[in-house]
Amino acid sequence: MKAPQFHVVPIKTTAGRFFEDYSIGQVIDHAVPRTVSGGERALYHALYPARHALYSSDEFARSCGLPQSPLDDLAAFHIVFGKTVPDVSLNAIANLGYAQGRWLRPVYAGDTIRSSSEVIGLKQNSNGQSGVVYVRTRGLNQRGEVVLDYVRWVMVRKNNTDAPAPETVVPQLAPVLTPDQLVVPEGLDLTNYDFTLSGEPHRWSDYEIGETIDHVDGVTIEEAEHMIATRLWQNTAKVHFDATNRADGRRLIYGGHVISMARALSFNGLANAQMIVGLNAGAHANPCFSGDTIRAWSEVLDKAETSAPGVGAIRLRLVATNAAGAFRLKSDDGKYQPHVLLDLDYWALMPM
Amino acid sequence: MKAPQFHVVPIKTTAGRFFEDYSIGQVIDHAVPRTVSGGERALYHALYPARHALYSSDEFARSCGLPQSPLDDLAAFHIVFGKTVPDVSLNAIANLGYAQGRWLRPVYAGDTIRSSSEVIGLKQNSNGQSGVVYVRTRGLNQRGEVVLDYVRWVMVRKNNTDAPAPETVVPQLAPVLTPDQLVVPEGLDLTNYDFTLSGEPHRWSDYEIGETIDHVDGVTIEEAEHMIATRLWQNTAKVHFDATNRADGRRLIYGGHVISMARALSFNGLANAQMIVGLNAGAHANPCFSGDTIRAWSEVLDKAETSAPGVGAIRLRLVATNAAGAFRLKSDDGKYQPHVLLDLDYWALMPM
Amino acid sequence: MKAPQFHVVPIKTTAGRFFEDYSIGQVIDHAVPRTVSGGERALYHALYPARHALYSSDEFARSCGLPQSPLDDLAAFHIVFGKTVPDVSLNAIANLGYAQGRWLRPVYAGDTIRSSSEVIGLKQNSNGQSGVVYVRTRGLNQRGEVVLDYVRWVMVRKNNTDAPAPETVVPQLAPVLTPDQLVVPEGLDLTNYDFTLSGEPHRWSDYEIGETIDHVDGVTIEEAEHMIATRLWQNTAKVHFDATNRADGRRLIYGGHVISMARALSFNGLANAQMIVGLNAGAHANPCFSGDTIRAWSEVLDKAETSAPGVGAIRLRLVATNAAGAFRLKSDDGKYQPHVLLDLDYWALMPM
Repeated sequence: MKAPQFHVVPIKTTAGRFFEDYSIGQVIDHAVPRTVSGGERALYHALYPARHALYSSDEFARSCGLPQSPLDDLAAFHIVFGKTVPDVSLNAIANLGYAQGRWLRPVYAGDTIRSSSEVIGLKQNSNGQSGVVYVRTRGLNQRGEVVLDYVRWVMVRKNNTDAPAPETVVPQLAPVLTPDQLVVPEGLDLTNYDFTLSGEPHRWSDYEIGETIDHVDGVTIEEAEHMIATRLWQNTAKVHFDATNRADGRRLIYGGHVISMARALSFNGLANAQMIVGLNAGAHANPCFSGDTIRAWSEVLDKAETSAPGVGAIRLRLVATNAAGAFRLKSDDGKYQPHVLLDLDYWALMPM
Repeated sequence: MKAPQFHVVPIKTTAGRFFEDYSIGQVIDHAVPRTVSGGERALYHALYPARHALYSSDEFARSCGLPQSPLDDLAAFHIVFGKTVPDVSLNAIANLGYAQGRWLRPVYAGDTIRSSSEVIGLKQNSNGQSGVVYVRTRGLNQRGEVVLDYVRWVMVRKNNTDAPAPETVVPQLAPVLTPDQLVVPEGLDLTNYDFTLSGEPHRWSDYEIGETIDHVDGVTIEEAEHMIATRLWQNTAKVHFDATNRADGRRLIYGGHVISMARALSFNGLANAQMIVGLNAGAHANPCFSGDTIRAWSEVLDKAETSAPGVGAIRLRLVATNAAGAFRLKSDDGKYQPHVLLDLDYWALMPM
Repeated sequence: MKAPQFHVVPIKTTAGRFFEDYSIGQVIDHAVPRTVSGGERALYHALYPARHALYSSDEFARSCGLPQSPLDDLAAFHIVFGKTVPDVSLNAIANLGYAQGRWLRPVYAGDTIRSSSEVIGLKQNSNGQSGVVYVRTRGLNQRGEVVLDYVRWVMVRKNNTDAPAPETVVPQLAPVLTPDQLVVPEGLDLTNYDFTLSGEPHRWSDYEIGETIDHVDGVTIEEAEHMIATRLWQNTAKVHFDATNRADGRRLIYGGHVISMARALSFNGLANAQMIVGLNAGAHANPCFSGDTIRAWSEVLDKAETSAPGVGAIRLRLVATNAAGAFRLKSDDGKYQPHVLLDLDYWALMPM
């Protein structure tokens, strides 16, 4: 047999979108919907030391007014996010930020999730080589209900540097969700919350704004684990999987893997910060690689009441590091310290 | 306590069958039936970058006329195959080939799969030390329906080299399934196929015979992953698990792991080649080891219409390599190039 | 932004209980109940070469009188055990032993498991620095039925060495469960047992007391696998996850991972020792690390009839080693040989 001749046929693979391919108001329906089951839930618990009782036990979830234990909120985020990668960040130079993220409905086993993004901002860089794209992404279930909604902006390369710069549109994004913007899942009632089964006695009123919590434990990360996780979310970014992709032969770990690891570690001290309902901001301060030992600490940034029975909201900074005792976030020049991997600002719900 | 004395009792473990243990017409019902669930489906997506929408979303599968999303066809193959290992290939010197493989019914969560093989060919090698065994293996579900049917032949050692050579029987195996032999799953209807959700716009009519597709992406393989996958299929071949088994201390990766990885990578360019219905031939050209970065390319070998609404069949060569840009299959002497791991010839179903 | 100031607020994380924190009769309800699904079952089969048919096939389980295939008995054990770690063994110096372990009810997909322990013994060490704590742990399902019950004792550090020594109470623990203490699952009937589907022809009457079985196969262990497994059981002991925790930079593998690996390997020779119903004793003789190749051998210690149709009980010693041919258990001085990782004494049920 001869080596096949590579025919000149219209190329079937896609190189992804470049900066000039986006326009304000453009809606991109992302591919590959995903039905989740107990399998995704078990894998989430196998990949992260996740112990929040509401996500571990159907019985506990029912005692809190939910029909069953939902898929972890971050797993829902990863699924929604993963679908956007081929359309939004395949040619991204940098993932610049998140804002206005809201979890609107829990995801349950049997639900089918898809994602859709709208371009809400464009700003070409002065070098003419790249630009910033802002998208509002929605995750939807099989009934068309929005389960998650967030804004993300990325720096994307231009392919054709002669393409004209679009009109600059930079969306006004509040740095923090106000408490009235948070959506408490229908039926949630924490008045009969079982603090023994949840693992810690601390309730909403026990936390003070400004308080910091060292989550103590560390987890050393392996290549197989982050790839298994990232594939599970059908995130296709090459840099996570292909050791030949970078000059140093290292695989960059998906930032969401660090988020989930840090959040799971935060159980130790925040066992009752059960449901994530808001993502205010997030920065992947430094890259994470296999062999890093992840640690986490949190800072209470704000607190608010909600109208749901027994349910308080707590705003937390979650910091992941790859060194013990690394409690300093930034240097005097405002840059993140080298051991900081993640700086995440989110709202969670707790029993009052 | 003293060290236990090893009694002389009939040995309970089995050394597996040798060439002289097979006879034409012999039927071997393989052990350990397996019930699959959402767990196997989630693990398949965690181990491979599998994104074909029909296998990811129950809603998408229903829009194609199926009751729900089936287990990936290759997962079904691995489960059926895995059961045959203790009876067919424990003393195999080489896995020589596959032919006439047909997927006859999708496997769904809740199904219980078992395997049965019939010996259909025997040919002792001229050296008298080994021989080739041909088996036709069937995978069956809990209703006794055949879900998969394929022929495989392996070279197996003789244990007793004095055992007489059996009469030589070599089955006539057509190198390719004809389109009329392919079974389209009952109810499959791709007339309302959603090309946005599936991830690519290319339909059956967009592919040309002779066309080749470089699937672009690469995945570097880890020991933990291939062992997790191979165990999931209850494949017990020592060489995949025991680093002390080979002189070089390396674990040989199950060929099926390479098949699934390459097929999943082929999404990029063949996102709409949804269902695998025929396996014409397959060769594991070179061994694969942990650390290899798998890439894949495909060649369109043939096309055919089917009687099902909107459903076309496409015959594809799927080649996996462990090097970038390795598009040459064989050397001038007809041998596979050293970077070729897999050469698979299969039929898939696509929207017309 | 400035580095956060770590406020002086009551510490939210817990350092775990110390020896002086336990008292006789104290009942500890452990946190984080867990609902299991097909996901946990699939992962168990992916992590261990588990092939016992009763745990693999719903159809096979039904043919044995059970409603469906249960979660592996050792997975049930790991889930129950994992919950006790934060309360019992976070400050443990050594896991000293198990006794009187009984599986009382199978765990099925959909069940929610929690754990509760009662302190039944205390004995301060003569050095005044530590003591031995004996607990009886029960695993319960969502109906409050006990699914598993066992005694474990650990050596725990004192935090306050001035705390007075408690009155010494050492429970009387029979070294072996008597056959009448074993609980056969309701409905179990092995009179129509299918020895072809189970994988081996050997029935209860084929095994002789004193007989030993080399299970032949080996599995080389990876970091990712034991961490995935240990996290799945929500076991939080740092030493399994944090490579910076020990001076040698190695992660100690959870002893239960070795138990499950050895038990799965014992399929080869004990395929019909289906259900584990009693744990008489267990010692983790030497630590296990990534890269070890686990092998196993068994010794038949006893046999007994049961009142259930076709069901016999067999008492087995299961030994895991990290070397081939390591069939000697202890040295002349009574110490375990360096290659012995596990010495487990259990009762299983077999077809008669």
